[in-house]
Amino acid sequence: MAAPLQLHPDRLFSSDETQRGIARRLYAEVKDLPIISPHGHTDPSWFALNEPFPDPAQLLIVPDHYVFRMLYSQGIPLEALGVPSVDGTPVETDGRKIWHRFAENYFLFRGTPSRMWLDWVFAEVFGLDVLLSPETADLYYDTIDAALRTDEFRPRALFDRYKMEALATTEGALDDLAHHKTIAASGWGGQVITTYRPDAVVDPEMPGFADNVRKLGELTGENVENWDGYLAAHRTRRAYFREVGGATATDHGHATAKTLDLPRAEAEALFGRVLSGDARPGDAEAFRAQMLTEMARMSVEDGMTMQIHPGAHRNHNEGVLTRFGRDKGGDIPAPTEYVTALKPLLNAVGNEPNLNVIVFTLDEDSYSRELAPLAGHYPALTLGPPWWFHDSPEGMRRFRERTTETAGFYNTAGFNDDTRAFLSIPARHDVARRMDCVWLAQLVAEHHLPEDEAAEVAHELAYGLAKKAYRL
Amino acid sequence: MAAPLQLHPDRLFSSDETQRGIARRLYAEVKDLPIISPHGHTDPSWFALNEPFPDPAQLLIVPDHYVFRMLYSQGIPLEALGVPSVDGTPVETDGRKIWHRFAENYFLFRGTPSRMWLDWVFAEVFGLDVLLSPETADLYYDTIDAALRTDEFRPRALFDRYKMEALATTEGALDDLAHHKTIAASGWGGQVITTYRPDAVVDPEMPGFADNVRKLGELTGENVENWDGYLAAHRTRRAYFREVGGATATDHGHATAKTLDLPRAEAEALFGRVLSGDARPGDAEAFRAQMLTEMARMSVEDGMTMQIHPGAHRNHNEGVLTRFGRDKGGDIPAPTEYVTALKPLLNAVGNEPNLNVIVFTLDEDSYSRELAPLAGHYPALTLGPPWWFHDSPEGMRRFRERTTETAGFYNTAGFNDDTRAFLSIPARHDVARRMDCVWLAQLVAEHHLPEDEAAEVAHELAYGLAKKAYRL
Amino acid sequence: MAAPLQLHPDRLFSSDETQRGIARRLYAEVKDLPIISPHGHTDPSWFALNEPFPDPAQLLIVPDHYVFRMLYSQGIPLEALGVPSVDGTPVETDGRKIWHRFAENYFLFRGTPSRMWLDWVFAEVFGLDVLLSPETADLYYDTIDAALRTDEFRPRALFDRYKMEALATTEGALDDLAHHKTIAASGWGGQVITTYRPDAVVDPEMPGFADNVRKLGELTGENVENWDGYLAAHRTRRAYFREVGGATATDHGHATAKTLDLPRAEAEALFGRVLSGDARPGDAEAFRAQMLTEMARMSVEDGMTMQIHPGAHRNHNEGVLTRFGRDKGGDIPAPTEYVTALKPLLNAVGNEPNLNVIVFTLDEDSYSRELAPLAGHYPALTLGPPWWFHDSPEGMRRFRERTTETAGFYNTAGFNDDTRAFLSIPARHDVARRMDCVWLAQLVAEHHLPEDEAAEVAHELAYGLAKKAYRL
Repeated sequence: MAAPLQLHPDRLFSSDETQRGIARRLYAEVKDLPIISPHGHTDPSWFALNEPFPDPAQLLIVPDHYVFRMLYSQGIPLEALGVPSVDGTPVETDGRKIWHRFAENYFLFRGTPSRMWLDWVFAEVFGLDVLLSPETADLYYDTIDAALRTDEFRPRALFDRYKMEALATTEGALDDLAHHKTIAASGWGGQVITTYRPDAVVDPEMPGFADNVRKLGELTGENVENWDGYLAAHRTRRAYFREVGGATATDHGHATAKTLDLPRAEAEALFGRVLSGDARPGDAEAFRAQMLTEMARMSVEDGMTMQIHPGAHRNHNEGVLTRFGRDKGGDIPAPTEYVTALKPLLNAVGNEPNLNVIVFTLDEDSYSRELAPLAGHYPALTLGPPWWFHDSPEGMRRFRERTTETAGFYNTAGFNDDTRAFLSIPARHDVARRMDCVWLAQLVAEHHLPEDEAAEVAHELAYGLAKKAYRL
Repeated sequence: MAAPLQLHPDRLFSSDETQRGIARRLYAEVKDLPIISPHGHTDPSWFALNEPFPDPAQLLIVPDHYVFRMLYSQGIPLEALGVPSVDGTPVETDGRKIWHRFAENYFLFRGTPSRMWLDWVFAEVFGLDVLLSPETADLYYDTIDAALRTDEFRPRALFDRYKMEALATTEGALDDLAHHKTIAASGWGGQVITTYRPDAVVDPEMPGFADNVRKLGELTGENVENWDGYLAAHRTRRAYFREVGGATATDHGHATAKTLDLPRAEAEALFGRVLSGDARPGDAEAFRAQMLTEMARMSVEDGMTMQIHPGAHRNHNEGVLTRFGRDKGGDIPAPTEYVTALKPLLNAVGNEPNLNVIVFTLDEDSYSRELAPLAGHYPALTLGPPWWFHDSPEGMRRFRERTTETAGFYNTAGFNDDTRAFLSIPARHDVARRMDCVWLAQLVAEHHLPEDEAAEVAHELAYGLAKKAYRL
Repeated sequence: MAAPLQLHPDRLFSSDETQRGIARRLYAEVKDLPIISPHGHTDPSWFALNEPFPDPAQLLIVPDHYVFRMLYSQGIPLEALGVPSVDGTPVETDGRKIWHRFAENYFLFRGTPSRMWLDWVFAEVFGLDVLLSPETADLYYDTIDAALRTDEFRPRALFDRYKMEALATTEGALDDLAHHKTIAASGWGGQVITTYRPDAVVDPEMPGFADNVRKLGELTGENVENWDGYLAAHRTRRAYFREVGGATATDHGHATAKTLDLPRAEAEALFGRVLSGDARPGDAEAFRAQMLTEMARMSVEDGMTMQIHPGAHRNHNEGVLTRFGRDKGGDIPAPTEYVTALKPLLNAVGNEPNLNVIVFTLDEDSYSRELAPLAGHYPALTLGPPWWFHDSPEGMRRFRERTTETAGFYNTAGFNDDTRAFLSIPARHDVARRMDCVWLAQLVAEHHLPEDEAAEVAHELAYGLAKKAYRL
């Protein structure tokens, strides 16, 4: 007989009766709040076109690097999981076969957040009540496949069912935002906004950088061969992203958190070198660093919240990069320093009370040592939630344990799901709400915070702080 | 109706009944032990002159960088909090207005140790029984202000009421210790001793270094233009601090933990360069490093305990430094390495059984990786308690969790409050005693340590180890 | 009256009733599983010769650096503990006197894993039921000494009593494996295998490196003056270790995790320089790095599991090194980087599904930031258990808390005791089994994992994963 699939109402709560009781009460007040998803990577075409999602494997396995990296780590080839190759390697296309491979190895996910998110999707979205296993794989496949062919499982219907108040996607600076225009013109009420992500026109080491900058000039009519024109082009695109795509934020994914605030002439000369291909060693890093400060200055002007996501060593696995391309589970966190790295930016604009720079980290060691002390001092700085590998129950626990005493709750930015796995978004917010209630329940149970104050904080963490941080 | 202010007798204890019961029993045996405060920054003039403290805002907000940094991080200007400027910026002088701003934002401190310390002061020292809020701000101000005008709230009366057995202040090497002389001559029995802090005559990058060294020569009659005379001058001042100020310890606040043990000729030449202003790059760092080893050698001779407090990136916020000066919440911890940094000092004197070097850290990552292994091996090395940002319930929990298994309890130095906030000293020791009992109660409840042994350890952590580490 | 010595059946389990109940059930199913000890430092002569162990002090104190480092850190000279000197310093030889010194200071071990392991040995192996103290020191000495003279306490009898299914020792590449031959020829059924540890012929900074390589050539008949011959000699010795000593694994203890994959000509030239003594700065590090990749390639060929143990700053205390030699408690963990360090090796062979590289760390910060993400992606990489200073209840807790969510359970290698303290091996495995059950019980109690799945995992962690990781 198949094992049952049960989402226990008390899941993640402490088994200590006192704490569990408090957590239940706090959670009851926040569990049904609308979802604010101010940073993520869903595809705006889903909401623009509202077409049915593809088959279960193409929806839940093939695009989810959390899922296929774990399977790959245990020796299952990516091609057997249907991950598209870039070198012509033939890959599995039979969704049911992929699904069976996944089901046979579902035990690998024990203790991981992927298991929590997937079980939630299976139970809550598709109504499955037995655990995924080789025996139930076909039942799963058939049930999900059938549901996905119905209108109730189209993107907009799910968006509405999920009570999403706002969802931000992320587009490159050169994107025409066609899908966001379509959404706006459609009459559908869902608030799907974009985010300005200029990495491709800011990072001289990105393939095609010079071409990208040239296109930026064409799109904006600015002379991007000089520094002022280049900056003006960014201002123009930021305005376009705000006006056409509803953007309230920018996003910056650099290898480090390094910032610079060079004298104008030096910045201009640096730009000249990186654009012309005459860059010296260190120029690319310096230019990215300078641009973070420039972007922060633009945020002071135009009010856009600035997000900095540093610290990933991208495409660590060269074999996988060659055969399957970027973003295939081979990104690995690296030690990341913030105190000296952020100093130039913070000394330029860190005392601006109306600027909001949200910093994320993949290096948890920086929580108590660097980030909480910085955020607990600089008006412009806010801590982003636990990110990527740390978007998990234990990751969330460590985040609150290590940041609250120095930065408090109000210098944190609420939750981001940061995902392209649209179906699991409510599960991710639910885990965050639960874990914040677990932390607050411990503070209450240990007489560190009165319960009425904890309830106020829980509401802010689940809803209010994200709205405020992203000006939604 | 105002929310009540209640200090629960079980605060910070686990809500697990078994652990809580054990923690209660352990804590009952240590809660009333006298306070040993062997390292801190209270002002000796308070105890010399015994004048009333100023108004509530000047006492509790304006000088407390923990308090105003949090308020500042949320956009409240330092001038609105009465923090004195150094550039002529006018600042708020109305204590009641400052107090109201604080009360309006008291919710920001939820979950922070500042909230615990302040609530304790409000409830235990001033007898307030409603929570601080905009509505109760005047009640608070009036109550505290009235109390501070009475003799019972003068410094010596509070010192006695707090059952302080010993309190160490910290004075620079050039200080005349006039206040300590006054205290000694006063007939009052309070043991208020000094600590030798030579940074201003040891760190070539401190403003006025050469002048300071010249004054050191004048005070001691030594020829401080040569290396031997300079070292002799330190010996003389150390003796003065012991004899006149009762000092049993020295304190050293460097940016890093780097030490050196140069051959005599090199040390001499280095001293010549930093004194003459001919320093090469790295000389200042090298000189500080060399002086830590010299100071350790003097401690072998004269028996003074040596404290090393490395790892703060001072005055990170240049705007705040320019407008408000040093120590205004802009100090940020930085990654700090100990294994290679301390090696020269430890190889010189680390095997001396009668030397006591107490090392602190702002980098919690060093607890299990570097500091506990070092302290669990070298006879001369002892771990200082969780410091500054980590002087908090979670910081204390992490300290014991990460150091006990390798360094044990007996290589740690008991508690330091390290504060200038005199009124909160008992609250800080109380948090430390509670958290140590929480940790011990867990060991007992998990059958890792018998309760009678835990009780002995609790006593040592609350009282005995500090006396021993500082030879009080 | 002497305090009782009691090993509580619930020791280390949470005092929370729900969690404790689950932990008891999980533990009941794994506590009696045979012991797989795939990495350690016991002496094969014990099992070859099966002679009685020496006196209690020589058995339990003198060779245990965990024990004497703690005593030394509190000022007890190593010579007073009988630790053999290398400089002629006379040392205590009276076992009973050493034992008394140990007993007087046994309180120093409160809260440490040494205390747990020792209490287990005293109670379970020698049947003592009072706590070690100055008063019971003689009782202890006499009881243990008498037992050690009986046949039941000879090495093979204990091995059998301990239900050890496999025990791996570690021998240098030049070892003749005589003891393993003796064991194999003896007819005794105990599986005592060796491990290939080539540091002395791989690390140019080891004393006698060139001589060692010459001996490697003699043993194998290869021309080790050229690169191909040198590599072939390794292949030959690896085969010898497999065939004669039953080895299934190699082990590599370098200061860092640095690897390189140089072009053949460069590797060849590098080998020439380090062998001839013409090494340039960085060559030794580069050669060690290159050899890790070469060894990994050989593992792909011959199927031996590869263990990398980086990150110890060896012999930190020069005074102790001079007087007492290596491995005397003066090894200190240092910050260790893995992401860029392991990249050359992983890019060479990390995608090989049949390779098993087990990485250990002394830097717990790398768990969630680097090692779990790497192991959760690369097929060839597995995480070793908490090592050395972190082989302790809290160390094990942190390991699971920080690795499970990203690497899962199945990318970890089960437990290693890594000890030369043979008597305590079951105690160490017992602590690991308990702490894994504690972690699993929390996941079950918080409805994160069903109990039947947790039971399967517990079995794997206690037994299955170690067999698989080491191909035993």
